[in-house]
Amino acid sequence: MHKDRWNRLARNRDDRLARAAGRLGARAGQRHVAHADAVALLEAVLEPGDRVCLEGNNQKQADFLAKALLQVDPARVHDLHMVQSVLALPEHLDIFERGIASKLDFSFSGPQGARLAQLVSQGHIAIGAIHTYLELFARYFVDLTPRVALVVAASADAAGNLYTGPNTEDTPAIVEATAFRRGIVIAQVNEVVDVLPRVDIPADWVDFVIASPRPHFIEPLFTRDPAQISEIQVLMAMMAIKGIYAEYGVQRLNHGIGFDTAAIELLLPTYADSLGLKGRICQHWALNPHPALIPAIEAGWVESVHSFGSELGMENYIRARPDVFFTGRDGSMRSNRAFCQAAGHYACDLFIGSTLQMDLQGNSSTATMDRIAGFGGAPNMGADARGRRHASPAWLMAGEEARRGRSGAAATPRGQKLVVQIVETFREHMQPAFVERLDAWTLQERAGLALPPIMVYGDDVTHVLTEEGIANLLLCRSDEEREQAIRGVAGYTAVGQARDHRLVENLRDRGVIRRPQDLGIDPRQATRQLLAARSMRDLVRASGGLYAPPKRFRNW
Amino acid sequence: MHKDRWNRLARNRDDRLARAAGRLGARAGQRHVAHADAVALLEAVLEPGDRVCLEGNNQKQADFLAKALLQVDPARVHDLHMVQSVLALPEHLDIFERGIASKLDFSFSGPQGARLAQLVSQGHIAIGAIHTYLELFARYFVDLTPRVALVVAASADAAGNLYTGPNTEDTPAIVEATAFRRGIVIAQVNEVVDVLPRVDIPADWVDFVIASPRPHFIEPLFTRDPAQISEIQVLMAMMAIKGIYAEYGVQRLNHGIGFDTAAIELLLPTYADSLGLKGRICQHWALNPHPALIPAIEAGWVESVHSFGSELGMENYIRARPDVFFTGRDGSMRSNRAFCQAAGHYACDLFIGSTLQMDLQGNSSTATMDRIAGFGGAPNMGADARGRRHASPAWLMAGEEARRGRSGAAATPRGQKLVVQIVETFREHMQPAFVERLDAWTLQERAGLALPPIMVYGDDVTHVLTEEGIANLLLCRSDEEREQAIRGVAGYTAVGQARDHRLVENLRDRGVIRRPQDLGIDPRQATRQLLAARSMRDLVRASGGLYAPPKRFRNW
Repeated sequence: MHKDRWNRLARNRDDRLARAAGRLGARAGQRHVAHADAVALLEAVLEPGDRVCLEGNNQKQADFLAKALLQVDPARVHDLHMVQSVLALPEHLDIFERGIASKLDFSFSGPQGARLAQLVSQGHIAIGAIHTYLELFARYFVDLTPRVALVVAASADAAGNLYTGPNTEDTPAIVEATAFRRGIVIAQVNEVVDVLPRVDIPADWVDFVIASPRPHFIEPLFTRDPAQISEIQVLMAMMAIKGIYAEYGVQRLNHGIGFDTAAIELLLPTYADSLGLKGRICQHWALNPHPALIPAIEAGWVESVHSFGSELGMENYIRARPDVFFTGRDGSMRSNRAFCQAAGHYACDLFIGSTLQMDLQGNSSTATMDRIAGFGGAPNMGADARGRRHASPAWLMAGEEARRGRSGAAATPRGQKLVVQIVETFREHMQPAFVERLDAWTLQERAGLALPPIMVYGDDVTHVLTEEGIANLLLCRSDEEREQAIRGVAGYTAVGQARDHRLVENLRDRGVIRRPQDLGIDPRQATRQLLAARSMRDLVRASGGLYAPPKRFRNW
Repeated sequence: MHKDRWNRLARNRDDRLARAAGRLGARAGQRHVAHADAVALLEAVLEPGDRVCLEGNNQKQADFLAKALLQVDPARVHDLHMVQSVLALPEHLDIFERGIASKLDFSFSGPQGARLAQLVSQGHIAIGAIHTYLELFARYFVDLTPRVALVVAASADAAGNLYTGPNTEDTPAIVEATAFRRGIVIAQVNEVVDVLPRVDIPADWVDFVIASPRPHFIEPLFTRDPAQISEIQVLMAMMAIKGIYAEYGVQRLNHGIGFDTAAIELLLPTYADSLGLKGRICQHWALNPHPALIPAIEAGWVESVHSFGSELGMENYIRARPDVFFTGRDGSMRSNRAFCQAAGHYACDLFIGSTLQMDLQGNSSTATMDRIAGFGGAPNMGADARGRRHASPAWLMAGEEARRGRSGAAATPRGQKLVVQIVETFREHMQPAFVERLDAWTLQERAGLALPPIMVYGDDVTHVLTEEGIANLLLCRSDEEREQAIRGVAGYTAVGQARDHRLVENLRDRGVIRRPQDLGIDPRQATRQLLAARSMRDLVRASGGLYAPPKRFRNW
């Protein structure tokens, strides 16, 4: 009895394995399961109310297992609590509609955001919380440990060792949390091979391997066609480089997804080089292998890149540039989202990302009415890392600016991370990026969230960069100054037009707001000619033919 | 030539491996090296100026490799840049005195703090920076990647797979960063076996394995003898439980090292139980397996514990309580400092730790004159996790208290981590814990640091708890209030005596300061009788004989 009291998880695990063996007619300990038996396996090992992690992130997806999960009998398997990074595939939501799952803790829902909001309002999904990735992984080790993990790898060997290849991504964090708390780990793989190129996940940690009928789905999320970069984006990129990167001497950084940051990457070997900045900025990156970074790498700007995940088409290029990327002895990349997020949080001096809406406090959100988009990695990287203790010139300078003239606890010297929001004053369909009130507040009410889904808090933002200029919020000393600094770069939006012109000019005199001309940038020089690559073809050429863009990006 | 340009690291790695093979007369690819050849191996693979990680943390130490490193010829191997968690062994400093190493980036130096300060002042060591652990690991993936990692495991198999056993600690982070950037990984192991209990590090990631002549050193750092807990500590523990844990409903937390927190752990099944708090607080922990937690675990208080490292003597107890601890299928624990620090940062609602000095802004430091002690994990866990987005009652309540009545960006609703400093007003030798000026400032000047070595910033501290009461800094609205709140619990220290009595009473009326009697706690009831275990023997008994304290703690 005493033994039983402390062995609940292990005994329950044994029960599940026994059910699986019974259902599949397999001998105990058999790791490989035929794909035709996937649904039976899931029905055998899952129990109602289980916490389940279905792997998927912005690149690879355990899509075969997602489809299999959708086919289980809801009378047997229901009310699962999904704890997963991303809702990307229709199946991720279908399982809620079918009643197989009922509760959700997650990080990002991108394309499924609208349907997610709908299912929440219909009562099909109870959202626990929206997280940033590292936060969700952290909870896997505390109060959200998966009982069953459904993961994905490139290949497995007979013993059950897994090779994830360049898209290691979330797998190590998920598997470690599950396997070491007596959970069940099931991996779909593209193939079973005799000898793996390398071992990414030891067989010990894996219970079942299923060779899926088709290779897993993978999305080229970080590919931006340079042909679509506008001259306004070139202008903003010039301001970022001269007014922020050079000013602070930013050597270690992370870029978000988007054309704005792609433009910066493509200006390094041209515009930034003309400013004599090579070696003085942008040497170390926590970043997926953005194709737009190829020209800067080829020009010798980049010392190192550690990545959350990989990017489709970049495999051969990465393999040929082992000095820059983290690669295994097999030559392919080892990405790791948990470590790269830690790097983005603690070892980077700057995060720059975009947003859909920003309010007068500087709070920003990608939530809009009727879409629950989630956060991804932005909150972790776009927050001041207050546990950081090592200094760098950029961090010290930002911290000094924030504390200048202050007193008390706020005056204790401390560095600060640069958190830049780069955004055009109007986004597509002439929606203003600056608003009096974020849609996030409405979403909070509708979805019953404890707080509005703010992605980056105004408290943490240091610079707002638009085509009109840069507002340095570190130098603001009151709510009113912060509000006017934001209005002062908000262009012709209603928020921008309501600026107090006298105050804004005063902020400009103090260097809180800087226009292109204050930075010595002539907007007429902001042409696409400055981009080191102006098309996908240019990127391929810059890579020496090593970069192989996915079909949909090949327009020649 | 083109190939060469991008293969610098891989070619350099091959050179090192070739030198090792030549020196040892070994065939290429041979992983196992005799311990008598350790120095020769290090001389062959190391190059002047290398960044080297010598593994060691507050528990296990790669002590054999440390000794071997000390024996290399400084004419061949010199000016190493050590990037390591802990300076614990004399050899960690001897290598600087001998000129083998010259630069240091680290996290914690505990017992070697005084000698470290001396070597810095003598110019033997240039300190890069002092980090918190997760921050240092993060830099391993950005700008401080080790070229050579000297790690330690319990055992290896013929292929070179490693078993770390319960003390996995830092190994996965170090090895992943080094191996995947073409560095060299050398592991000392206690033994080579045919079949490992489980695989913690795949052989792919390891270059050389050396069976050391003696098992690696291991320190029982988290063992506190309940016999040494004072009645003042019992009183403070009662205040922590009733005035903070119960008040906020803290379910997920981390405790630092020390008798103060050991007292809290030992009051859970007694005092906290009498308050009806079982199930309402303290269910999930990011914590090493503290022996003092045994009575609470046995009484059914604890749902889960994820650990940074293990604790000597707790092996059999952990093995018998698999529902509580993260263990492998072999039954022994899998600790992981990186993931546990992430858990402490993002998945805990409260951090409580002690300090040596606190100033009037609430900044605290363990740095004293002529000692560079480092930070360990405290900055990461004792800082508000501003990237956090999921809510819990404790976090929401703390955030609401901090924002009540504020305006602008500071008023945007947001949760906040509870960061409690628990400290007696006088520490040993009647040194006051509260000071006008931290010794950290003097140390900054002497050691030439960019910032004073503050462990937890006043900005991040939410509560100061002494035998005189609790100061809730969340409720302070000005520098003056914060100062008086701290003075108001600083007892008979000079800082405490200089309080403004009228203001302090006003803070007490507002609930900013709470005395034991305000909490309904009678100090006369704060006796050692309340402790669930009052001796090491009691802990052993509580564990059903499973806990086996190290010899020095066995006084019966």
